[in-house]
Amino acid sequence: MALGNILVGQSGGPTAVINSSLAGVYETAKALGAPHVYGMQFGIEGLLQGKLVEMDPLFADPLQIELLKRTPSSFLGSCRCKLPAPAEDERPYQTLFALFAQYKISAVFYIGGNDSMDTIAKLAAYGAAVGSDIRFIGVPKTIDNDLMHTDHTPGYGSAAKYIATILKEVICDSSVYDLRSVTVAEIMGRHTGWLAGAASLAAGPDCGGPSIILLPERTFDEDAFLQKVSQVEKTYSNVVIAVSEGVKNKDGAFLCDLVSTADQLDAFGHKAILSGTSRYLADLIRTRLGCKTRAIEFSTLQRCASHLASRTDITEAYQVGGCAVQAAANGDTAKMCALVRRSSAPYQCDTALVDVSAVANLEKKVPDEWIAPDGMHVTAGFERYARPLIQAELTPIYINGVPRHIHL
Amino acid sequence: MALGNILVGQSGGPTAVINSSLAGVYETAKALGAPHVYGMQFGIEGLLQGKLVEMDPLFADPLQIELLKRTPSSFLGSCRCKLPAPAEDERPYQTLFALFAQYKISAVFYIGGNDSMDTIAKLAAYGAAVGSDIRFIGVPKTIDNDLMHTDHTPGYGSAAKYIATILKEVICDSSVYDLRSVTVAEIMGRHTGWLAGAASLAAGPDCGGPSIILLPERTFDEDAFLQKVSQVEKTYSNVVIAVSEGVKNKDGAFLCDLVSTADQLDAFGHKAILSGTSRYLADLIRTRLGCKTRAIEFSTLQRCASHLASRTDITEAYQVGGCAVQAAANGDTAKMCALVRRSSAPYQCDTALVDVSAVANLEKKVPDEWIAPDGMHVTAGFERYARPLIQAELTPIYINGVPRHIHL
Repeated sequence: MALGNILVGQSGGPTAVINSSLAGVYETAKALGAPHVYGMQFGIEGLLQGKLVEMDPLFADPLQIELLKRTPSSFLGSCRCKLPAPAEDERPYQTLFALFAQYKISAVFYIGGNDSMDTIAKLAAYGAAVGSDIRFIGVPKTIDNDLMHTDHTPGYGSAAKYIATILKEVICDSSVYDLRSVTVAEIMGRHTGWLAGAASLAAGPDCGGPSIILLPERTFDEDAFLQKVSQVEKTYSNVVIAVSEGVKNKDGAFLCDLVSTADQLDAFGHKAILSGTSRYLADLIRTRLGCKTRAIEFSTLQRCASHLASRTDITEAYQVGGCAVQAAANGDTAKMCALVRRSSAPYQCDTALVDVSAVANLEKKVPDEWIAPDGMHVTAGFERYARPLIQAELTPIYINGVPRHIHL
Repeated sequence: MALGNILVGQSGGPTAVINSSLAGVYETAKALGAPHVYGMQFGIEGLLQGKLVEMDPLFADPLQIELLKRTPSSFLGSCRCKLPAPAEDERPYQTLFALFAQYKISAVFYIGGNDSMDTIAKLAAYGAAVGSDIRFIGVPKTIDNDLMHTDHTPGYGSAAKYIATILKEVICDSSVYDLRSVTVAEIMGRHTGWLAGAASLAAGPDCGGPSIILLPERTFDEDAFLQKVSQVEKTYSNVVIAVSEGVKNKDGAFLCDLVSTADQLDAFGHKAILSGTSRYLADLIRTRLGCKTRAIEFSTLQRCASHLASRTDITEAYQVGGCAVQAAANGDTAKMCALVRRSSAPYQCDTALVDVSAVANLEKKVPDEWIAPDGMHVTAGFERYARPLIQAELTPIYINGVPRHIHL
């Protein structure tokens, strides 16, 4: 099937490698003969307002592609917009398909998480209903690693590498004085513990790693937690704890909400900003165990640290972008390009197409067997899964002492 | 003067390159024929308890020196201990000089900030008073860059490089949605704005840098600040502000203390300990200007990010360590090895000895001429000063996806 003009967009939260997927889409489309590659500005939301940019003039110089791969966040801009069901409101679809016709779009690619896959599923279904031959393919992206039917998601490996690396550095920092102390590092992950679990990758012959890891997959048990902290303190005078921002107590309340309640909701009804879980735990430990504590939030740094991206992640992000374009050229639609692990040792990973509707709106949790029996750490199985994803580096292009990026 | 055994200690807050100074002391001492190199564990405080380690067996393999240069925080451990005046209490001096005699120490090196230089000054004065020929030399170190009589301090360049780099990444991250937003990044520096000023180094052809930088050298003026934020918002929909943790209002109160005392008890009914200058400003802006805000604390990460150290900084840290040993071999005592800038373009820097008593306990502020007239940014002169200090990189030795360190 001939590949005509294509349109690509980015959606949801930033990652360190979402632009590498954009590079994969762009270069593969050009290699397969797409006359024009258009980008949605600010995702489907911007597109609905007619915000669209032609990418070809921007990337005539291949150096720009190298910078794109090293630029964090979404080059095209992003949104958190969910399309209504066509039965409820057909107008956005009419607007979008008119734009597709105007720009002679043969295929649409959307790089994002489970909400973005919902967008692709709806566009593909609408297209089929109206007899369009435009193909719609999803490209997975999220630091949260919570997409179904893919071994992992591009973006996760780089966030995991950043978390493991800076946690190692924080552990060095926290043990410098001859004092008892507990450091609580707060890691992203509203509903799943994939990122918090990555804290375990700090461990090695030169570093004990975090003594405790709390995941949202387990209910927080204050007594068991304090007992474990006390026990760990007998061995290590400087204790480091990693906690997911999404940990809840037995009443189903986020620990961070016990600190503060003034937060906003996004378009999906998610709590927009969660912070304060580490603060809550640090206060708890200081009050109950009487030792010096420090709360550190890894904050948005963990999702945009391109200077420390995983080369494996960058490569795979590029591959899923490119394979999505290949799939569209083959005539596929309503699919997502997933990652399929062939082997962990040596690590080998392939791509495959899965139905986008099987991915949309669902969430993959850390499996029970990868969570320690006491619920406060991960197992060796988790490490076998995650360690290959943080391997190797891509050197930033430093100019004047800082990494160079590219912007629209 | 023959160099006998030497003793070296590290003191004060960690940096990314304090261990490079240790490497410089160690390798230069061995090159100059020191039979044994001893390290104080946990600085002078640990030494007073007899905590001392022989470094020679640890560094027989030169790979270990390479790892040492790439390991953040203080390899030997640190302390925040100030010696009493000998007239008040001579006992610590008796203990220390007995240890020096026991280990046949010919020279003592202390890597640290202005409090550590006080320690060196006191030890040298006591040594002179009791007729000791042991030499005492200070090696400068602090991310705060607040030492007198040295162009800059080892540790500052790496912290500045980290701040500039992650601020660039945060700026990418913060501009991803088509929404008005203000991000406030909180940077260390209780009394001086050298680190906050380094946020300006994020700016370049690909990045506007922070629109506002608040330094402790200037009193916070709420009205002027809000007016400037409003004005900047007319040009940029996503505003990024860098603020030093040490900014005070006209009553001399730290902004972060205004958060803690307002209404904030922690979840356990105790007064909350919040490092909250950025939080305070974010709340202020949200309340008064009605836009989405986010507070990010760069936290201890900025002082221990060896994975992103400045090669210039690592090299100079090594040089001041080595030149301190050379000075002791030449018979100098009661000195600190300072950095002397010969030229900014091209950047050339040399070392020189200064009297340690001229450095002890003093603090160097950002000069007035490097602060913008409105007190809310730094000037081009600041950039000419700071930009050379963040140049070049030293690749971490990555094993299994994370940088390898070395520990006692």
